[in-house]
Amino acid sequence: MKQRLGRSSIKYDRDVYILNSASIVGKKEGEGPLGLLFDLVGDDDMFGCNTWEEAESSLQKDAVYLALEKAALKADDISIVFAGDLLGQSIATSFGISSYGIPLMGVYGACSTCGESLAAGSMSIAGEFADKVLCVTSSHFASAEKEFRFPLEYGNQRPLSASWTVTGSGAFILSGSIPADGRVRARISGITIGKVVDYGLKDSMNMGACMAPAAASTIEQHLIDFDSQPEDYDKIITGDLGSVGQTALFDLLKKKGIDISERHMDCGIEIFDANEQDTHSGGSGCGCSAVTLSAYILKQLEEGNWKKVLFAPTGALLSKTSFNEGMSVPGICHALVIESV
Amino acid sequence: MKQRLGRSSIKYDRDVYILNSASIVGKKEGEGPLGLLFDLVGDDDMFGCNTWEEAESSLQKDAVYLALEKAALKADDISIVFAGDLLGQSIATSFGISSYGIPLMGVYGACSTCGESLAAGSMSIAGEFADKVLCVTSSHFASAEKEFRFPLEYGNQRPLSASWTVTGSGAFILSGSIPADGRVRARISGITIGKVVDYGLKDSMNMGACMAPAAASTIEQHLIDFDSQPEDYDKIITGDLGSVGQTALFDLLKKKGIDISERHMDCGIEIFDANEQDTHSGGSGCGCSAVTLSAYILKQLEEGNWKKVLFAPTGALLSKTSFNEGMSVPGICHALVIESV
Repeated sequence: MKQRLGRSSIKYDRDVYILNSASIVGKKEGEGPLGLLFDLVGDDDMFGCNTWEEAESSLQKDAVYLALEKAALKADDISIVFAGDLLGQSIATSFGISSYGIPLMGVYGACSTCGESLAAGSMSIAGEFADKVLCVTSSHFASAEKEFRFPLEYGNQRPLSASWTVTGSGAFILSGSIPADGRVRARISGITIGKVVDYGLKDSMNMGACMAPAAASTIEQHLIDFDSQPEDYDKIITGDLGSVGQTALFDLLKKKGIDISERHMDCGIEIFDANEQDTHSGGSGCGCSAVTLSAYILKQLEEGNWKKVLFAPTGALLSKTSFNEGMSVPGICHALVIESV
Repeated sequence: MKQRLGRSSIKYDRDVYILNSASIVGKKEGEGPLGLLFDLVGDDDMFGCNTWEEAESSLQKDAVYLALEKAALKADDISIVFAGDLLGQSIATSFGISSYGIPLMGVYGACSTCGESLAAGSMSIAGEFADKVLCVTSSHFASAEKEFRFPLEYGNQRPLSASWTVTGSGAFILSGSIPADGRVRARISGITIGKVVDYGLKDSMNMGACMAPAAASTIEQHLIDFDSQPEDYDKIITGDLGSVGQTALFDLLKKKGIDISERHMDCGIEIFDANEQDTHSGGSGCGCSAVTLSAYILKQLEEGNWKKVLFAPTGALLSKTSFNEGMSVPGICHALVIESV
């Protein structure tokens, strides 16, 4: 077990680079604080398609296209694509990436899927199973509301704890080697794989609170496994806890004697201006952490503003069926150590 | 890339063993031709639960419990569980395995998920990321009918091309080392990761035909990558093509000059007596290939009746939403080389 570290973590003894990446978002995300950083912003959220699900598929397709183009690679250069989304049976992925003809490993971890795909992808590089893999995830506000809550036409009132699912997709090309021009965006040096954590909360309009215990569990386990302190990271970044979940995360970690409040960032809080854009607790969805990583976090690492971050996307493991049957909403969180090169 | 082989395949240069496994099935499966081989057969398909979804979760929980017990291991001995099911947002998995507290990587490949979980799990062993991992998948007739087709209460007529989703779960413990008593069930020596293959078929009552092109693609790619012939395998085993899909598979491969008809076996054909049990084209679901692998295929390898098989579970990538929106039903198939030890 030369690469294993502690109960839940792996520290790679081989280099895993994020060679390049791409982000594509909807109109509302384009109008948010990070709007100018995304590679492509849609004019509307249909992206020329007939249904929201097709639109989400086209997001994945376009994100992969852009990432390949930016890395000057073809689909045939990629050994495996690790991909997933929030829809039942991951249909955004099935229809989004099929035309590329790349061997597919479908992953599911709700909104943590961006982290899971990068964890699985980086393992395949570090294990010498591939030299180049793709990791892509997506979410779409309208397809997610239909999948998990109410039809948009119903016009339901959203409580202040609710988050706004990000319309967007981020695609990442991982590589075991540095290309001739020496350009890579960052390096993944280790991962912590999360467990299902269930505090018994049942409110699908307060996903931040449902996921905060999982984020606390994974961050604590990560610090134990890597024998590190919060100060060892320039930022500790969760996926989509939003402002409500952030408060819960700080409280849970403080009880363990861990204070991350000075260096915590949440992609869901960053991507929208909650007051101006009426997004309540913040952004959410696989797409939220994926596009923020590609457009903003990797940029900070490239520019040397940050040296090392812990990127920990969070997911709420519910379905319409489990919710309607009165089940709780367990959470999961996978974390990656991403460093500047 | 010391372990990579060809476009889509990996040949492990380290040993990956199936240490032990367990199978649990419903009443109908227990009455089928393989009935006496399963570890546990339920008295009814509710397994003491209030809903079908909870029942499916309990299948995963019990299969993991049995597999751990048979291997004399505790949950804490397992580094990662690779798990998935057919339900939206994989809720059978989330609620089924949460109590074990094992780091979870959720996988989705429709009915091919058993193959995908074993492929991902074996990579984590061969890559030296873990010494022991669990791979578990499930399906349930009633939760699947509700998820994909009609409520059972509707009493719809099933066409002869329809398959019958197996109620069952199979759990497998993979290990990088042989235990002190020298007992392992088999060895995974390589994998071929499938692509999404879409022939444009749209009939969710004929999944065999939808999945056959993916099975043909993966089997052909496997033979190319491993520079092997059908004769090199005692059996080439698909997951749940059923009798309709089997015919299509033979036809598609014959066009490529490949004849597997003498050594093909389909778990969906084996698990039920289609005439006596009124299951039409055969059994299907993640559980179908998982319980057949655990109860029947590994037994044949242990007893020396077979030396080497290609195990290739097939999946149909549809959701209720994609079907209702008129989309096609693409297929995917992941293959593993499993050898006697």
